[in-house]
This record gives sequence, structure tokens and C-alpha cells, in this order.
Amino acid sequence: MSETERPDPSAFSCPAPLSNLSEVQLGHGGGGRLSKTLVEELFVAAFDNPHLNMLHDGAVLDLGGKRLAFSTDSFVVHPHVFPGGDIGSMAVHGTVNDLAMCGADPLGLSAAFILEEGFAMEALVRITASLREAAKAAGVHVVTGDTKVVDRGKGDGVYINTSGVGLIPDGIDLAPQRAQAGDVVILSGEIAAHGIAVLSVREGLSFETDLVSDSAPLNGLTRRVLDAGGADVHVLRDPTRGGVASALTEIATAAGVGVKLDERAIPLDDGVRGACELLGLDPLYVANEGKCIAIVAPEVADAALAAMRADPLGAKAAIVGEVVEDHAGEVRARSTIGGERIVDMLSGEQLPRIC
Amino acid sequence: MSETERPDPSAFSCPAPLSNLSEVQLGHGGGGRLSKTLVEELFVAAFDNPHLNMLHDGAVLDLGGKRLAFSTDSFVVHPHVFPGGDIGSMAVHGTVNDLAMCGADPLGLSAAFILEEGFAMEALVRITASLREAAKAAGVHVVTGDTKVVDRGKGDGVYINTSGVGLIPDGIDLAPQRAQAGDVVILSGEIAAHGIAVLSVREGLSFETDLVSDSAPLNGLTRRVLDAGGADVHVLRDPTRGGVASALTEIATAAGVGVKLDERAIPLDDGVRGACELLGLDPLYVANEGKCIAIVAPEVADAALAAMRADPLGAKAAIVGEVVEDHAGEVRARSTIGGERIVDMLSGEQLPRIC
Repeated sequence: MSETERPDPSAFSCPAPLSNLSEVQLGHGGGGRLSKTLVEELFVAAFDNPHLNMLHDGAVLDLGGKRLAFSTDSFVVHPHVFPGGDIGSMAVHGTVNDLAMCGADPLGLSAAFILEEGFAMEALVRITASLREAAKAAGVHVVTGDTKVVDRGKGDGVYINTSGVGLIPDGIDLAPQRAQAGDVVILSGEIAAHGIAVLSVREGLSFETDLVSDSAPLNGLTRRVLDAGGADVHVLRDPTRGGVASALTEIATAAGVGVKLDERAIPLDDGVRGACELLGLDPLYVANEGKCIAIVAPEVADAALAAMRADPLGAKAAIVGEVVEDHAGEVRARSTIGGERIVDMLSGEQLPRIC
Repeated sequence: MSETERPDPSAFSCPAPLSNLSEVQLGHGGGGRLSKTLVEELFVAAFDNPHLNMLHDGAVLDLGGKRLAFSTDSFVVHPHVFPGGDIGSMAVHGTVNDLAMCGADPLGLSAAFILEEGFAMEALVRITASLREAAKAAGVHVVTGDTKVVDRGKGDGVYINTSGVGLIPDGIDLAPQRAQAGDVVILSGEIAAHGIAVLSVREGLSFETDLVSDSAPLNGLTRRVLDAGGADVHVLRDPTRGGVASALTEIATAAGVGVKLDERAIPLDDGVRGACELLGLDPLYVANEGKCIAIVAPEVADAALAAMRADPLGAKAAIVGEVVEDHAGEVRARSTIGGERIVDMLSGEQLPRIC
């Protein structure tokens, strides 16, 4: 299994040319095109193997009959506490949702804390309690962990990595590549709430209505959808960093299909819409932490939509588009005023440290 | 499986009193008593569940017949590159070794990067290549990952979290609680090299001999030991932060037994010994990243020792002590000059950011 010779450091070289930026930019973590370049040119090139699925929500490992989903996510959201959640609850939701998008029932989470010297113990206690409550609500245990402390000025209070494992039941077959012409695109509810909530508290903005993050565990909702649609559910994806636009563009690229969106059908809270207009943000690019895109065969679209709506987190679910043969790799949206526009991936960074 | 109600933030409270320090200290990450207090009073109290094993090397989950080991570790070592390795290779070795100490053959690793804006892309490329080479040498794939970028001054170039999963073969039964009176304590080789190597480069110290970290993947060595000793191998542990002293004290406490060490038998390189003397460090407390402690039934001690020595990473393995009924929870060492001393856990922080 192991070779005990230490690799020769002089043999280290990156197998692919990296983007010509000489330094890491904030946009490399933004979930858009710059992130994708870094991941594809550096990490995918370096770690190339049949299981690697760094652009997607998790890897699927074959345990001889059983399929294990395995996912990881670090959380660096700033500020740590925002309307509707905090870095602790989000660290649970993010990884539970990644497992759920693989079709897996979560078996266990890890929690690894990178603490900055001087961080208030009281804040750590609250964040830990929040993480615990979120895990309980998602029906999953934190089973292993790690704590590191870095010196003052080398962190930002607390960063949390959660990884998760879960088993994928038989009869489930999810992959972005399975999106095919004729499939129906369903969205589980109103978009853009998380990004706007974090931004509003970070920038001290106040709006007429309270803007609250949608951060929530989706494993109950996805279980309902999979029970309703089985193998005719082709793709599940949570549109986090980069928003609905980036998630759908990635799927369209992976599957070599086009996606037609009907913007008028996309659920959007009036307060969030107003905030986006004021801030000049396109809600299609704003992060969500409790929403799910399902791409399903047309035969099961009504059943999948009904299943989502039966879940409290999917009450406002709607059919928002379809998969087409045309314009492969591209998402096009019929706008609210009737025109059609190309919805590309986020190119750089819209809102840094949103998750 | 899931409850979709969002937990009420006002209900968040920590179930146990935390140590009376109001701020996070460097020593909370040092692997000694202060770390243990934080983990036990905060994390174990919060995440209490049958699988939680935060003080040990990983959790073991039952997959209906198969046992899955699941482990996580964040790496914040400073500097990123040191004699014998870098943060990339160490991120692989640390998690592979945690799985190996559970008796598991590694199935897959995750790699999650927290990058600081402005970090040199060239350094990132080299670290990624090193991580890849280390994974190859350990016979494991990186199967999933994540990248986050934090603003300048909120990180230290790069932090890496790796988590890992692996299957534990039938017939293996490892747990610190299994250490029992009469057991033999075997150490796989010379101690304290990692801590001294990192310290020497960090502080710009130069010694007569080159001091090189022992960072290495131990899954080949542990497989040999388990093949030789089977279920009579009671405990495996890699003595990282806090060193051999803290690892053995934790085991003694968990099992309610005493450990008698023979300091004269502990393998120690002359150069490392000299550096420790010069720096006033006790090598028993200095971190290792490629060493294994095996606690085995006396019947298989010779076979386990021979198995270690047959591995290139265990050529200098030695029997260094025994498990006794007396002084439960305590490690005592017969010193090189004949006296006996109590070897307690490291109390605070000896060397910050060693892993």
C-alpha cells in the first residue's frame, strides 16, 4: 500500500500551466470563473484520479457494494454571526448539503477549528453551541475534530472546516453530466437571501425589511425529492458561492447541454430584490445556503416539485427552466421584460468571505 | 432524518463550564493539558455522542458490517517549508497516519485550502505538488477539496485541512482503553526530529548536523504490525503535538493503567539530543510526524517489533516500556542516570504551530 521512500523535492512540479496571476486573489475563492481556473489548472491537474470531483459537491467512493459520499468545506464567513445563522451553523449546513446533493444520508461530520490567539472564549462557546444545534437539527453527529491555534494577526478569530461522510442508497444516480435535453429545472425557493444578509450586516446597511440568511440543512428536502423521483432525478446542486448562475453554468458545461431559465419564475423575496437593486447585485449570482436546484426527467417533474413543496424548506419551490440541446455549456435567461440574455459564471469575486 | 425548523439562537448554551480563560491561548492548540481542557470542556461536552473520539486519532463508524475510520486535521505549520517536508506533505502524512492509527487502510483524502490574498502562486504550486507526491507515496488519492481565500492579514499564506476515510479490516481492535497491565510499549524509531527541524528553521538556528523532520506516511508500517500481531495489538498512536509523553499519558488516563518507560531504551538521534539540550527541550515532549507507538500483548511483542524493523521507517524500533497496574493514569520514566520521574502531559505550549 505505501512506499516508504520520501519523494524527492526536486521532482515537484506542477503538471499544467497556471493562470498567469502571480498571487492569490480574493476572486480565487469566489466560486466563479477565477475559482474554477485555480481548481482546474492547479488542483485537478495535480490530484487527477478517477474519484476526484473537486468542482462538485463531494466524491463518491465505492466500498464494495455500498457507495460512500465524502465532502469537505472550510468556512471563513465574515462576520461570524449574521441574521439567520453564524459560522457554526453554516459549517454544518454547508457540508450536510454537499452530502445531500450527492444523494447521501449523512453519517457523520468532522469539525476542525483554526482559532486565532486572543479570540474571545465566549464567542467560541456560542459558535460551538450553534454548530451542535445545527447538527442536531440535521440529524447528524460530529464524530471527530481538531483544534489548531495560530498567533494573533494570522487568522480572523475562527475558521472552521467540516468534512462529512454519508451513504448513498441504491437506486440513486446523481451527476452533473446526467443533465439532458428535455429535463426540467426546479428551484427549491427564494434565492439570494444568504449573500444579502451577510452583506447587510457586514456593511452596516439597513433595509426596510429584515433580511435573513436562508442557511439550513437540505437533507430532508432532498430525501423527499429522491423518494419521489428516484433515478429520474439527474442532478442536485446547492447554489452557494457564485449563485444559481454559476451552478447552472457548471452543470451545463459538465453535461454539454444548454439551460433555458425563465427569470419571471425564479422565486425572489421583495426585500432581497430591493436590496439587490440598491446594491447593483444580480440575485442570480448571490450565494444561497439553503436552496437546492434539482434537474429531473420531465416525467417526474410534477412529483419532484410536489415533494419539495411538502417540505417546509421548499414551500416556495418552482419550475424555473429546462435543459435544451442548443447553446451547449451556456445558460440563457428570458428576462422579466421579455428579452433573452446569456447568464455566464461569475467572473471574479462578487462578495468575498460569504461562506 | 432532518428537522427543518431552524434552532432558536437564544437556546444556545454550552453545557459545561469552560476553563476560566477568557481568550484563546496558543497553548490551546499545543496538544498538551490546555488543549485537552478545551477539547473536553467545550467540544466533547457540546458534541457528546457514541462515536465522538475527539481526543483520539479518528472516529470509527459502523457501515453495517464494515468499519469506516474518519479523521480530520488542519495544518498551520510555520514556516511552510522545513527540512524534510512542507505543509503539503505533512497534510497528507498527518491524516494518513491518523487513519493508520485506527488500523484503517486509507481510501481517500480531502484537501481544503484556506489561502491568504497575495500568497505567491508559485509557493502554492509547489505545496500542491508536494501534497500530490506525498499522497502518491502513501498510496492514497485526494478525492475532494475546497478553496477559500481570506483577505490580507487574516491568514498566513496557506492553511490546509485534510480529512480522510479508510476501512478497518476484520480482526483489528484498537482503542486506547485496550492498554492493559503486562502490555509492551514499542516505539518505531528516533523521536523529536520533527519539532526540532521546524524550530531550527523557524528560529534560524544551525547545528553541526542537519536536523530533518521525520514526517512520513505510516500506513505501511502499521499494516505490517497488525499483520504480525492481529487483535493482540491493543493501541497504535502517533505521538505528534505534545510528543511521546502526552500521547502515553492520554492512553494511561483512558485505560486507567500506568506506563513505565525506560528512557535509556528510547531511540534518539545524537544531533536531535544535542539540539534539545541546547534549547532546554525535553525530547519526550517534542512533536513527531512519522513515529508510531504500539502497545501490544507480551505474546506478540517480538513479532510486532520484528515487523516494525522490517519496514524502512521502523528500522530503529525498540521496546521502550510496559503497561503496569500501579500509578494508574500516570507515566513514569526510569531516567538515564537511574532515577524515576513522573512524565506528565505537556501543560501549555512548547512549540507553537508545529503542525
